Amino acid sequence: MRALQYRTIGSPPEVVEIDTPEPGPGQVRLKVTAAGLCHSDAFVMSLPEDQYVYGLPLTLGHEGAGVVDKLGAGVAGVAVGDSVAVYGPWGCGRCHECAQGRENYCRNAAALGIAPPGLGAPGAMAEYLIVDDARHLVPLGDLDPVESVSLTDAGLTPYHAIVSSLGKLRPGSTAVVIGVGGLGHVAVQILRAITATTVIALDTDPEKLALATEVGAHHVLVSDGDAAERIRSLTSGRGADAVFDFVGATGTLDLARTVVATDGDIQIVGIGGGLLPTGFFSTPFGASVRAPCWGTRAELIEVLDLARTGRLSVHVERFGLDDAPEAYRRLHDGTIRGRAVVVP
Amino acid sequence: MRALQYRTIGSPPEVVEIDTPEPGPGQVRLKVTAAGLCHSDAFVMSLPEDQYVYGLPLTLGHEGAGVVDKLGAGVAGVAVGDSVAVYGPWGCGRCHECAQGRENYCRNAAALGIAPPGLGAPGAMAEYLIVDDARHLVPLGDLDPVESVSLTDAGLTPYHAIVSSLGKLRPGSTAVVIGVGGLGHVAVQILRAITATTVIALDTDPEKLALATEVGAHHVLVSDGDAAERIRSLTSGRGADAVFDFVGATGTLDLARTVVATDGDIQIVGIGGGLLPTGFFSTPFGASVRAPCWGTRAELIEVLDLARTGRLSVHVERFGLDDAPEAYRRLHDGTIRGRAVVVP
Amino acid sequence: MRALQYRTIGSPPEVVEIDTPEPGPGQVRLKVTAAGLCHSDAFVMSLPEDQYVYGLPLTLGHEGAGVVDKLGAGVAGVAVGDSVAVYGPWGCGRCHECAQGRENYCRNAAALGIAPPGLGAPGAMAEYLIVDDARHLVPLGDLDPVESVSLTDAGLTPYHAIVSSLGKLRPGSTAVVIGVGGLGHVAVQILRAITATTVIALDTDPEKLALATEVGAHHVLVSDGDAAERIRSLTSGRGADAVFDFVGATGTLDLARTVVATDGDIQIVGIGGGLLPTGFFSTPFGASVRAPCWGTRAELIEVLDLARTGRLSVHVERFGLDDAPEAYRRLHDGTIRGRAVVVP
Amino acid sequence: MRALQYRTIGSPPEVVEIDTPEPGPGQVRLKVTAAGLCHSDAFVMSLPEDQYVYGLPLTLGHEGAGVVDKLGAGVAGVAVGDSVAVYGPWGCGRCHECAQGRENYCRNAAALGIAPPGLGAPGAMAEYLIVDDARHLVPLGDLDPVESVSLTDAGLTPYHAIVSSLGKLRPGSTAVVIGVGGLGHVAVQILRAITATTVIALDTDPEKLALATEVGAHHVLVSDGDAAERIRSLTSGRGADAVFDFVGATGTLDLARTVVATDGDIQIVGIGGGLLPTGFFSTPFGASVRAPCWGTRAELIEVLDLARTGRLSVHVERFGLDDAPEAYRRLHDGTIRGRAVVVP
Repeated sequence: MRALQYRTIGSPPEVVEIDTPEPGPGQVRLKVTAAGLCHSDAFVMSLPEDQYVYGLPLTLGHEGAGVVDKLGAGVAGVAVGDSVAVYGPWGCGRCHECAQGRENYCRNAAALGIAPPGLGAPGAMAEYLIVDDARHLVPLGDLDPVESVSLTDAGLTPYHAIVSSLGKLRPGSTAVVIGVGGLGHVAVQILRAITATTVIALDTDPEKLALATEVGAHHVLVSDGDAAERIRSLTSGRGADAVFDFVGATGTLDLARTVVATDGDIQIVGIGGGLLPTGFFSTPFGASVRAPCWGTRAELIEVLDLARTGRLSVHVERFGLDDAPEAYRRLHDGTIRGRAVVVP
Repeated sequence: MRALQYRTIGSPPEVVEIDTPEPGPGQVRLKVTAAGLCHSDAFVMSLPEDQYVYGLPLTLGHEGAGVVDKLGAGVAGVAVGDSVAVYGPWGCGRCHECAQGRENYCRNAAALGIAPPGLGAPGAMAEYLIVDDARHLVPLGDLDPVESVSLTDAGLTPYHAIVSSLGKLRPGSTAVVIGVGGLGHVAVQILRAITATTVIALDTDPEKLALATEVGAHHVLVSDGDAAERIRSLTSGRGADAVFDFVGATGTLDLARTVVATDGDIQIVGIGGGLLPTGFFSTPFGASVRAPCWGTRAELIEVLDLARTGRLSVHVERFGLDDAPEAYRRLHDGTIRGRAVVVP
Repeated sequence: MRALQYRTIGSPPEVVEIDTPEPGPGQVRLKVTAAGLCHSDAFVMSLPEDQYVYGLPLTLGHEGAGVVDKLGAGVAGVAVGDSVAVYGPWGCGRCHECAQGRENYCRNAAALGIAPPGLGAPGAMAEYLIVDDARHLVPLGDLDPVESVSLTDAGLTPYHAIVSSLGKLRPGSTAVVIGVGGLGHVAVQILRAITATTVIALDTDPEKLALATEVGAHHVLVSDGDAAERIRSLTSGRGADAVFDFVGATGTLDLARTVVATDGDIQIVGIGGGLLPTGFFSTPFGASVRAPCWGTRAELIEVLDLARTGRLSVHVERFGLDDAPEAYRRLHDGTIRGRAVVVP
Repeated sequence: MRALQYRTIGSPPEVVEIDTPEPGPGQVRLKVTAAGLCHSDAFVMSLPEDQYVYGLPLTLGHEGAGVVDKLGAGVAGVAVGDSVAVYGPWGCGRCHECAQGRENYCRNAAALGIAPPGLGAPGAMAEYLIVDDARHLVPLGDLDPVESVSLTDAGLTPYHAIVSSLGKLRPGSTAVVIGVGGLGHVAVQILRAITATTVIALDTDPEKLALATEVGAHHVLVSDGDAAERIRSLTSGRGADAVFDFVGATGTLDLARTVVATDGDIQIVGIGGGLLPTGFFSTPFGASVRAPCWGTRAELIEVLDLARTGRLSVHVERFGLDDAPEAYRRLHDGTIRGRAVVVP
């Protein structure tokens, strides 16, 4: 089969021909229907050799969807032909976290060498994908795989961050979304769908602010030196009950710190290299700062159910497998609007 | 191998010789080290033919512990020789509830014909037990299997009920435990270990009240016509923030209704045939009534961790497999103190 | 001043002339701008003498709004001229519940003789209203008092019930609203505004079902013998994660019991005289049943903030104080659409 | 009456004679029975003039207890002679936070010039204290005022931090307490009383580690360069589910950062001048960092109820009012064991 692999540190990924894999006992083979590109792929491929821990060659793609193609021995509950999405943050399945479906915080994955598809295990940018356990498959039903595949990360990650702060997002509250890219524009929709909070979206790019308005932000602001003051003004001085920073750079974290309310939450989602100095005289009393990771199994089920209500839509640009290297170039250049998806 | 089976409706269970089972892909075979008896086994064996849905012959035993003996194809994360306890409420593993480890509330188990060991699937009262998936095994480590096996139900069930009401059990609160039998005497210990609530235990049997005191109840009361008034008096008129009824008969539920505080919780655990009329002018404003079932995977891990602290101990009476029918007779007669455990 | 008083057991309320009250220390006098009628007023006036505990004469009206008219000694934080709504379930202000603003579950109110306005204390159906403490006033700001006053009960009560079950109302869940009257039609709006749950509304009256659709219900069903089966069908057999019964009669509670999902919630809001037999073999495993009462101080602030977003609107029919007895007659006859409000 | 006042920036506090205050409407005058000293008093008195915002002269003492001596007009629910503790973090009483008794996070206090006693308003280090509202009084009943007064801050503050992290402290979890001083030694007791978590206490002073053991810590460690490795070892590599840092210096925060588990909590309680850089590649995935402030009204009720169970005891050293300046000197020198209390 053909697959998109990262093969040489520092070089672009390549489309190569490899053996079609067979599912072992308990495993499931999917015929891939869609695979999403993510900035974290680019991050991984930017790492120097001494920090790169994902193995070579690496078939890319941690956002995956497919049709069940072949069942390994002992697999029950799924049938050949089922259209499914893949829950990516694979864990050991048995620790205290995994026992709650919080595999994204598995206690043993690192020690056991368990890694998500596309981030250690062979990923979804291929004609076929092996999923290690049927519990990592969520039925798509009538949802379009290409339009939905990004929800497995670009939907699940903001959903997890938002649900973690749900108690702060009662009517009368304000949520700030910094960065209206692939994840941010989904975050705005999730906030509108599951809360009555007032949503303020920030970006430096006017087109992305237009997108934010289109998907439901109540207010959009250019992320400049006046942004903090404007947020204070929009919130009668109180600040934001929750800030979701999808950039995570020093400047955006400083903005988050400045505008978060007393006892509010800052969720750092973007891996922009910044750190937020937390404590007395820097952050307000009671304000918590946290960098969550991906999401839980139940949350992915909820995200797809939310999509079924028609209230979540990801702006998608499609590419064939052969065009995937080009898609990564454009992702790197910042010229993808919404999310890029490879359809093998 | 030998196994204790319920073979004929209305007759006592029998020790029989059957084939030793082989683990299929994904399954694990245990050499059983301990199997607990439970009142619900007796309930099952009391059902007339038209209500009996567990299949015949039925190898009994839904509380099980063992040593991993043989792995089916594709099993990872457990090793032959591991001492483990079995999580009994098996679910589909993939629905929204199972995705949180809440397999005790699985949405699909009934439709898919999935049943717990000893309650449909072959149970632990045998030399060997097949467990359908490694996720249903929790490491025992140094815990003694015989002393710990009952925690998989007689520990997990009250723990789940108590944790469900944890928000009501802040310092200054009062918890009432009705019935100090196999589950109730563990409930008292759990309440003492994970909260600072005041524990009032009730029973009709003075020996069981002595046991309640021994395991930490602050107050013990004979469950008679004065009990409600005494509880009101002990709580300055307020009543109990949570009532855990391990009897569940009409009389105990009426007591629960009478003594629960405004916005308190009643958790019906005992299957005593009673129903509690809930609503305005019967139960106090805000008081909730609920019959929970068994517990979650994460909660079983927590119960065993709690046992490791030395704060949970089950009073156990041991029987060989051949004496298991006699043990069920004594369970039926109410002459077991604590919990009966079969050691094959 | 003029006031609407219930003066004789069994007789209709009358408009009478009484002394205009003066605010004592810590109290606030409002010039009433709106006072809502409620079925519970009718319930109170239907009680025989031996069950009536609200005192005579009783100035009616537990839903109140007004303009601050005069401050008692020591009052701070409000100013003459402020437009405010009244939080009705007055408590002692100091017990563990009141310390959380859960005055609706005050531990001491009964013992101390503290009662809500219109349900013991003089109510809002008068030209002036004395509020016992400034903490019971929530700023209305630009909200119209007549359109908003019902939110203090007909908004707050369903909001409290819904928020109590919020954890069950994740995307993919289903909420059933039984009875689309004054509270039910607000409940539908709240569910739509603060969750992504699927809302199924039931009533026997086609006009009320039309109203349910208008305010956002996804599905409406005639509340007849087929309703349970239709709900099962709409939920793929699972049933409803939460049922809000605004009728509370034997028949509607039986429906609630039949359609609630495993581990779901039934919130009984309507005082229709029914009781729900709760326990094994009647209600599903884990399903909780509860009759909540009114709501908390913070929740009233949230309800009014929700109204500010434009997502809550109460259908209101206005009456002058002199027409209030007529309004109660029509409320009793069931010919009020939405909520009746007296504008003194 | 006599009072201990901070009168001149940079000078020690002085005992002076001032007018005995009269309670206004809604206010309560206490005859002070005990007033606790706190490191934050020392912090306040260390501030240079341009950062000092508490007014001069300032009667010190934000931990207060007394007997109700005189009621202002309109006060209900308390009686002359009642023994009470003072809830210190006074708020406006009406905002969304205060409506939940979370006055420690009041949205309006700063704007309205509301300040706690001893931190702006006249404090408890005097013969008499004016409390602005009866809601700020919690009955002491039979609790000894001198032994209990510190619970209003040294008990409430750790209790609030611990309760905020309660969901992380299930059986099997580990809590780390850094600094076993006035607050830390109470934190150990609270953790033992309301959870079954394993408690590891750290300090640099062997005497304080002995105190930690005495009050219930499972493990004590010298806070040195090996501490992190030892904590990892004690937790099988996982780290601590919650870290409570009662020092808050750069070094202790760095330790907290190093030992906190994935998705764990760091609560910074000590005002030691440190900040914790939070975000990817510094703190573990999901770990939250927060500097909480004091506690809520309901939590103070709970802390005193916990003290009634005999499970909380503060090591107290008593001083007369005339010796209070000396007590502050010793506090500054670090020679107080436990907590210093002034008995006027």
